[in-house]
Amino acid sequence: MLIVMDRTATPEQVSAVVETAEKRGYRAHPIPGAQRTAIGLTGNRGAIDSGAFENLPGVFEVVRVSHPYKLVSREFHPEDTIVSVGGVPVGGKQVVVIAGPCAVESLEQVVTIAKAVKEHGAHLLRGGAYKPRTSPYSFQGLGEEGLEMLSAARAETGLPVVTEVLDASTVDLVAAHADCLQIGARNMQNFELLKRAGQSGKPILLKRGMSATLEEFFLAAEYILSEGNPNVILCERGIRTFSDFTRNTMDLAIVPAVERLSHLPIVTDPSHGTGKRHKVTPMSRASIAAGADGIAVEVHHKPQEALSDGPQALTPAMFAELMAEVGPIARAMGRSI
Amino acid sequence: MLIVMDRTATPEQVSAVVETAEKRGYRAHPIPGAQRTAIGLTGNRGAIDSGAFENLPGVFEVVRVSHPYKLVSREFHPEDTIVSVGGVPVGGKQVVVIAGPCAVESLEQVVTIAKAVKEHGAHLLRGGAYKPRTSPYSFQGLGEEGLEMLSAARAETGLPVVTEVLDASTVDLVAAHADCLQIGARNMQNFELLKRAGQSGKPILLKRGMSATLEEFFLAAEYILSEGNPNVILCERGIRTFSDFTRNTMDLAIVPAVERLSHLPIVTDPSHGTGKRHKVTPMSRASIAAGADGIAVEVHHKPQEALSDGPQALTPAMFAELMAEVGPIARAMGRSI
Amino acid sequence: MLIVMDRTATPEQVSAVVETAEKRGYRAHPIPGAQRTAIGLTGNRGAIDSGAFENLPGVFEVVRVSHPYKLVSREFHPEDTIVSVGGVPVGGKQVVVIAGPCAVESLEQVVTIAKAVKEHGAHLLRGGAYKPRTSPYSFQGLGEEGLEMLSAARAETGLPVVTEVLDASTVDLVAAHADCLQIGARNMQNFELLKRAGQSGKPILLKRGMSATLEEFFLAAEYILSEGNPNVILCERGIRTFSDFTRNTMDLAIVPAVERLSHLPIVTDPSHGTGKRHKVTPMSRASIAAGADGIAVEVHHKPQEALSDGPQALTPAMFAELMAEVGPIARAMGRSI
Amino acid sequence: MLIVMDRTATPEQVSAVVETAEKRGYRAHPIPGAQRTAIGLTGNRGAIDSGAFENLPGVFEVVRVSHPYKLVSREFHPEDTIVSVGGVPVGGKQVVVIAGPCAVESLEQVVTIAKAVKEHGAHLLRGGAYKPRTSPYSFQGLGEEGLEMLSAARAETGLPVVTEVLDASTVDLVAAHADCLQIGARNMQNFELLKRAGQSGKPILLKRGMSATLEEFFLAAEYILSEGNPNVILCERGIRTFSDFTRNTMDLAIVPAVERLSHLPIVTDPSHGTGKRHKVTPMSRASIAAGADGIAVEVHHKPQEALSDGPQALTPAMFAELMAEVGPIARAMGRSI
Repeated sequence: MLIVMDRTATPEQVSAVVETAEKRGYRAHPIPGAQRTAIGLTGNRGAIDSGAFENLPGVFEVVRVSHPYKLVSREFHPEDTIVSVGGVPVGGKQVVVIAGPCAVESLEQVVTIAKAVKEHGAHLLRGGAYKPRTSPYSFQGLGEEGLEMLSAARAETGLPVVTEVLDASTVDLVAAHADCLQIGARNMQNFELLKRAGQSGKPILLKRGMSATLEEFFLAAEYILSEGNPNVILCERGIRTFSDFTRNTMDLAIVPAVERLSHLPIVTDPSHGTGKRHKVTPMSRASIAAGADGIAVEVHHKPQEALSDGPQALTPAMFAELMAEVGPIARAMGRSI
Repeated sequence: MLIVMDRTATPEQVSAVVETAEKRGYRAHPIPGAQRTAIGLTGNRGAIDSGAFENLPGVFEVVRVSHPYKLVSREFHPEDTIVSVGGVPVGGKQVVVIAGPCAVESLEQVVTIAKAVKEHGAHLLRGGAYKPRTSPYSFQGLGEEGLEMLSAARAETGLPVVTEVLDASTVDLVAAHADCLQIGARNMQNFELLKRAGQSGKPILLKRGMSATLEEFFLAAEYILSEGNPNVILCERGIRTFSDFTRNTMDLAIVPAVERLSHLPIVTDPSHGTGKRHKVTPMSRASIAAGADGIAVEVHHKPQEALSDGPQALTPAMFAELMAEVGPIARAMGRSI
Repeated sequence: MLIVMDRTATPEQVSAVVETAEKRGYRAHPIPGAQRTAIGLTGNRGAIDSGAFENLPGVFEVVRVSHPYKLVSREFHPEDTIVSVGGVPVGGKQVVVIAGPCAVESLEQVVTIAKAVKEHGAHLLRGGAYKPRTSPYSFQGLGEEGLEMLSAARAETGLPVVTEVLDASTVDLVAAHADCLQIGARNMQNFELLKRAGQSGKPILLKRGMSATLEEFFLAAEYILSEGNPNVILCERGIRTFSDFTRNTMDLAIVPAVERLSHLPIVTDPSHGTGKRHKVTPMSRASIAAGADGIAVEVHHKPQEALSDGPQALTPAMFAELMAEVGPIARAMGRSI
Repeated sequence: MLIVMDRTATPEQVSAVVETAEKRGYRAHPIPGAQRTAIGLTGNRGAIDSGAFENLPGVFEVVRVSHPYKLVSREFHPEDTIVSVGGVPVGGKQVVVIAGPCAVESLEQVVTIAKAVKEHGAHLLRGGAYKPRTSPYSFQGLGEEGLEMLSAARAETGLPVVTEVLDASTVDLVAAHADCLQIGARNMQNFELLKRAGQSGKPILLKRGMSATLEEFFLAAEYILSEGNPNVILCERGIRTFSDFTRNTMDLAIVPAVERLSHLPIVTDPSHGTGKRHKVTPMSRASIAAGADGIAVEVHHKPQEALSDGPQALTPAMFAELMAEVGPIARAMGRSI
């Protein structure tokens, strides 16, 4: 932490800051400048609470320097983490494709779609049994019945299953059926859920919150890792901005940022990230070219009858086309798919 | 819903849209224009899922018109709702002041602060026993013990208690101690929690999510009301923007917007809304002048030793000054305080 | 500036940073910490370009500390600046009301409105002769003819005139008619215009850009002050966010922020700041309660026939009501109006 | 335009809206619904000003439907536009690479860099003679002298020149030296500059404003096209958000959005779009994979001594690596480079 003093701060005010710091166990390093004095603090484990200093007389501002995340950081764990989801490695040389319906609607629906996406090259099946819906009047998912349908679809196709868990109380139930628990953007800072999901030991696909900074995203993952569960896959799914042509704004520069600062794999969700069907394939290509370890896309065999998020779902034929287009990009990146 | 066709859409494409709409139980009203045809849809209860139409051939875009919230809407319930929190009416003529520490740290701390804020005119006591913290390494609150300290502070001062509930599983426990359950910004779309809090029958202080639109905010409240609980107090606590001089950006225009569209009371939280102690009093004045039904502010008798959110907490002396400044504004608005 | 090194940075990498800094004329102060070393740089006038350091081996990040503005800063000029606009002081005890049409449409229109707003207590007349319009097909203003109408309205009512200048080439022409030049949000970083407006010596009303940070806003003002013109009035007019119930989001916390960091006066524009007529009066009250030195509002005697920005214009009757409501707030703040 | 009435609107209020519309030359189409009436308006050329309706009694809200841009629209001009910049086609099969220093600093500097980027495969030379700088104390460019250096670099290398014009008064001067005029993000709504640049007849590289919607971006281009100049290249350079790991957020979904709605070519600027050197190459790959017609990147042979924007400039060696990485992506897209 760096404490920047007012230009007019007195030597006594500087001393008072130094004393406060030392009383709290830090070492204080005053740096007298041409215009003002700054004071560097060291010796802290974790983040220092800036509140102790921000309101002392003569303090102009407090600049936080160290980052409070550790376990997710590449500085502390230089090698890439590869997460195995039902035997499929995420974060390695292969680009992973997660595909399936937004919501599980019936056994016939999920099996039909699972077969279709498998045929065209998907590695993992996605599909929601519990759906977080903005309105209480929207379809909320089939719940446990939906989980059983996902298990049946896995039995039929061999595709491991990624599905969302909405609440700490259903972690065990979802974990009994899923190969990977998804924590959605709205729950990225549902800390009880993060802890319980961490305790489950299952791989976790953690989506970035709609207004989460990278530091907050990392700290949400840190909640899971600090429960002893290193199997976290980060997922960019679009942030909220003023932009008028997509439902969210995909922030693809997060892919090289994560790669630089963390050892965890990162995938993207171009379906939710754009909210528009005709942008899913271009943004899938772009994600892989940015270096993403995988993509998650929504596929529905009858998108006009889908019970949720129809506008962004691809038909199986469109998904086949997507796979035909992302293949050459993955290979241009030196990866398989 | 309005479906806008391409300029080059054929009559057959228009007919296909009309048929799709009628098959789904809507009435379709084509409006041929100079440049293109638009088709209005009526007869829908709740929102129509635009997905059924957005990808039909010849469709340029789909414009949603009706709003999916009902119970929170002033159109359906013209009279103002006044929520009683332990006997204190929120949403009436009186501006309500909710004050207390960010987190409950000890019995001595919470009682000291409760007495101080009561002495200076606060109506309700706030304080967190369960704290949502961005980092797993930050103080997470005293839990049940903290709830008991809040009960003790109420017994001592007579101030009804507002405190946060973080998870559906602790709703009953928190409700046993609190006069009003607070649902925080990070949990605004934790739908399990909204439902359970609704079922508790307790008054709910619902904070706006950091990137929530007004419609999403209303729909979160709708989850609570649709459980039969009309006692919801909305709370603006700042949204996330690029702004560089506050931690969040208080969006005070929401106060007249809520007043126009909903019957629910609205208060603001200038402590979290700015994150800076010296902006709390000016934004408290501004909130009341905008028409807010109350303010929630953080007070700590030793802010430099606070275990959380020190930079924004007022000392009791500063709180006394705040009360001295907001009083004349409330009276200028024709309200008591 | 503070240079934060990697945890794994070698002593040689630290030395290389120190050398680079000293070669550029700074003094370098290494601060060895428990986890990593940071290096404080002093001796710089103005901002240091971080580019020289950001890519040196072993550097984790570069944290800028000093602010590059000077002349606008309260640190360098502690006393409040009061700007006289045609004899009306802005920034003093009196809250100033600037009112008039969005665009000058005819002599009859502007004189009618000027008389009405004067009658109800406005201090300055606003009105655009040159209009920045998003679409090339929208009404672009009457130009020089409009300026003459504004001069005529001033002659008729005695109200000094505030009007927008769009381009460096018309600064002299506008300055010949106006008592105060307005520079709009879209031009906040039109640096040629800022310089020329500064050279004119006229008071300048500088609007905050839609995505400007406070530092950028101050630096835009610094362009004007550095031309020897201290007469700058800052104006908050709403920033661009995802918010769905106003056209822009008024960031009222900027009022206490400016007051703390700068000696310049600050006013707000609730008409553009909300874009909705029924929010203008509440946000006018809130602005004054936050501490603003004035408000600028749009008034039109026939808003449904206005050639631009009808939805946010008040009728003279509504303006009279606004004045009746803001008066008590100003007085509650200990100010006259 | 669609006018949505209150649920409680009277038949008289509906009639009043219809009359107002017809008086203004529109046809009104009332659509009575289950809950409320909506009224579609047709017959309008260009956008209808919603102000005439928004405040009529009984009106709940006004929904704008038609888009006010025409000339930039693919609906009005289905074939792709290919803009020739000094003989280099932009918008065709070839992906175009624009490279060079942020600012022209000396003849030796710009010629050295121009030769280097040409050697590694760049098609166009970029470099600023006039620099828009946030601070008045930063290097503002060499002006006319810098233009002459760019001309000399073109003579030496054969690379056509793209350079920024800051003000309407220097359009002719810049046009005398440049093959393509760049209009920067801060000037996207400097309408005088747009008009004058349009009149110059030169190709224009128009950068998206930091908070511009796609509609505003298109309308800025429409200003240029409506002066009879169809040679506009759109450029995404990042928008302003809360994101904490880049200077701006590149909104790559704009690439397929532009492709769908407009005939104009679109390129991206990953240097300004990220502000971080190590993100330039990944985002260049992603841009091309999204379908961009080209990229603009900053290259400096001594980035640590650059007078502006050092942190994002690539060295010639890094640029060579970038070209080696984007080539396979372009070919995977079926394009040459």
